[in-house]
Order: sequence, then C-alpha cells, then structure tokens
Amino acid sequence: MIPRKIGVFDSGVGGLSVLKSIISSQHFETIVYYGDTARVPYGTRSKEVITQYSLEALEFFNTHNIDLLIVACNTISAYALKQMQQNANYPIIGVIEPGVLALTNKIKNKDSKILILGTKATINSNIYATLLQDKGYSNIQSLQTSLFVPMVEEGIFSGEVLNSAIKYYFNNINIPDAIILGCTHFPLISKEISNFFNNKPILIHSGESIVEYLQAKYKLQRFDTTNIEFYASDSLEKLKATANIWLNQ
Amino acid sequence: MIPRKIGVFDSGVGGLSVLKSIISSQHFETIVYYGDTARVPYGTRSKEVITQYSLEALEFFNTHNIDLLIVACNTISAYALKQMQQNANYPIIGVIEPGVLALTNKIKNKDSKILILGTKATINSNIYATLLQDKGYSNIQSLQTSLFVPMVEEGIFSGEVLNSAIKYYFNNINIPDAIILGCTHFPLISKEISNFFNNKPILIHSGESIVEYLQAKYKLQRFDTTNIEFYASDSLEKLKATANIWLNQ
Repeated sequence: MIPRKIGVFDSGVGGLSVLKSIISSQHFETIVYYGDTARVPYGTRSKEVITQYSLEALEFFNTHNIDLLIVACNTISAYALKQMQQNANYPIIGVIEPGVLALTNKIKNKDSKILILGTKATINSNIYATLLQDKGYSNIQSLQTSLFVPMVEEGIFSGEVLNSAIKYYFNNINIPDAIILGCTHFPLISKEISNFFNNKPILIHSGESIVEYLQAKYKLQRFDTTNIEFYASDSLEKLKATANIWLNQ
Repeated sequence: MIPRKIGVFDSGVGGLSVLKSIISSQHFETIVYYGDTARVPYGTRSKEVITQYSLEALEFFNTHNIDLLIVACNTISAYALKQMQQNANYPIIGVIEPGVLALTNKIKNKDSKILILGTKATINSNIYATLLQDKGYSNIQSLQTSLFVPMVEEGIFSGEVLNSAIKYYFNNINIPDAIILGCTHFPLISKEISNFFNNKPILIHSGESIVEYLQAKYKLQRFDTTNIEFYASDSLEKLKATANIWLNQ
C-alpha cells in the first residue's frame, strides 16, 4: 500500500507542527487534519478520558476514507495508540516510536544525558523513558513543562514571559546532550529552549521524526501540491487562523 | 424557600474560590460541587460549546435534589446562564450580576476607572462592560489575561513567572480604581495583581460578591457545619487535592 490520503489527529492545534513537517515532505496528495478543539487540552486529563476521546475521534476519520492516520500528539500516542490501532482498519502511527528511533539514530553513546519534555500526562506515562531504558540509555531525566502549551497557544514564542517559564523549569537542569520535544507545541519555542542550554543539545522534533519514520517504513510518492482539509470540533475558523501562523512560522 | 442544599458548578477547579466564600458564610447545610474536569477549560471555547456543556452539567445536578445552583464560573455565567435557567426547576445564579452589584455598591463615582479581567471568552462576551455601561460607568477597560489560569492551576501563586505574566498584561495599563476579578482563578493571585498597582484598586471577587448577593436575596439560615460533596467528570482525586490547597489558601 502506498498511502496517498492520510489523516492527522490532534487534541487541538499542537499537531500543526507535525502537519508542517508532513506537508514539507510532499509525500501525500491529501491530508485531513482534525483537532478536537472542543475538548483540548488532553495533556492534563486521565488515561481513561484521553482514550475515550481518541476512540471517538476515530469515528470522525472512519468517514474520510484515509489510507493511514498519524496521531500528532504525544499524550494521545502515549495513552491511546494501541486501542486506536485495535479499532481501525488502516495503520495508525503515533509520535513516540518515531521520536525514540530518531534519538537512537542521532545519539549513539548510551551514557548521553537525555532530557524528555512533555505535558503532565505524557511525562506521567513514562513511555519515552521506558523505551529509551529498554534500548540501554541510562542517563534520562523527564520533566513536565505544562505552561509552555498555553503560552504557545497565546502566540508567545519568545520574550520575557516565556523566558521566565524556561528559567522556572530548567534552572536546576544541567545541559543535556539531547532534548526530546515530547509535545507538539514545543517546536515553536525550540529556539528559546535551545538558547537556554547554549544551543548544545540535539533536539528531537516529533514532526521531523515521523517523516523519517514514514520514509523508512513505506514506499512513498511525491506530489507537487498537497490538498489539506481542516476539521475541528469547535471554532474551525480559529484553528485555521492558528494554522496560518504555525505553518508559516 | 430557604435554600439549605445547593449546587456549585464550574468547568474545573476555579469555582473552588467561590466555594470557599460560600463555606465561610455558613449559610448552607450541604454543598454539592461539580467540576467538569474532563472538558476544562471552557474559557477558550465558543458560545455554542460552552452552552452545550453547561446544559449537560444540569443533568448531573438534576439527580441531586438541590434547592439552588450557583454557577461559579464567569465564562459559563456570561454565555449559558439564561439557557440553564430555562432548563431547571430551581433558581440558578451566576457570578456576573453579583459582581456588577458589588462594584456599584463600592464605586459610586461613575467616572472611576474600572478594569475587567477575564478569560478570552468572558472578555469577548463583553457582558461586564455592557452591564456597567448600562449603569452609567464610562471609563471601562476589558483585558483577557488567559495565562493566569494555567499558572494558578500549576500552583503558581507568586514568583517570577507570575510576575512576568502580570507585567506582560498590565505594563501599559494605568492604575484603575477598581478591578473586577472576572475569573474564579484570579482571587488566588489577587495579592500579586494588587501589588502591581500599588494596592490602590478595589478588587471585586466573585465569591464574596455572590455571598452578599445571596444574603440580600434570600432569608438564609446558619449552620455550624457544612457537608461538602465533590464530583468531577475526570480525576476526582485531583480535584480533591486542589480543593485541599485552595480552600486552605
């Protein structure tokens, strides 16, 4: 199967950073983006609620005849991916496994210091840390940096408010060799995060990782133009306005 | 009717600041608190979704045999109060009208500068400004200060991150005579807000306003102890933990 029409699912706008990478890859003819903006954010909710909402989103995609679904959200990928896969007749790919693979491709020294950032739910799932430990990495630190999400949603990509949040979270953290940006909002402030650590860490970005993963896993075509359809459970116009900013960021 | 058992409804934990004032008043025997934590926050959503969720919450309270329901959230009060009132057979009281009344009781000079703070949805509703203009106040400024909500939810009640957000929002605002804390999260950081303006403005607090309003409207009893029942659509334990912090703050 060569996927031509794919779905991209996120709780809200975060997945737009993944969408941007996928669009740049030019591998797909049509992309259907669905944001559950009526119930965003998922990152502060329980496993049960995250799973319930994610299975409900499948009902949306079932009517869109897609070849493949990308879960463009770390929290959903951490908690609901398996159950989603069991309930769909097309492949569903999350961002965690591609992110781990990208890291292992880039960081060969198993003693390297790895910092995992994410929402409360993603960090509490411990999924990145567990997968990396399984691969032999031993110097891992996980950190929930929840405030970055509303800041990015407010359009704050730099400046004093963001920098004081960065200091608040990172003040006692030694410079890591690699940072997993374990939330799709974080690539929009990756420059500022990187700056805080003197631009030394390698950053792992969910969107870039998933494109590499898809390229390795599937025989993909190339299309000159990609048709993108946006859907949202609330305020489609607001999602489109945010997409306009994020995709051009 | 002398209300003894009442409901308190909020999208999440914000209403706990109102609950605290109501508990202190000792006027009720039983309080049923319900937070729609599976779908919080409402303050970034559309009128349609806020109304739908609020009407669904009524179904919860309909099984609890309450004498009166308090909507302890400015956003819900701004958008969904009328429709809730039309769908219940007990009185439902929001926080907007009591807040406006508290202000008019305290600020007699109609030229006084009034600053209204709230979520995006509450500020966009323009409800406080409209009601105050109807009463002859002419020097009104409305400001969405959305970031305060996740900060308070993170347990940040003071310090550098909060102060840089305060500066971010208030840097170009002249000292007002009164501030309406038009979001039930804001009383928890009212000291810091007040400090920024040299402690000069009078602060209008939804919880205190609603107690005054109830005392004026109903003949209320006094109870030595109040039985409080907590319910949540997600993570009841987390709500209770937050209640433990907020009610003792």
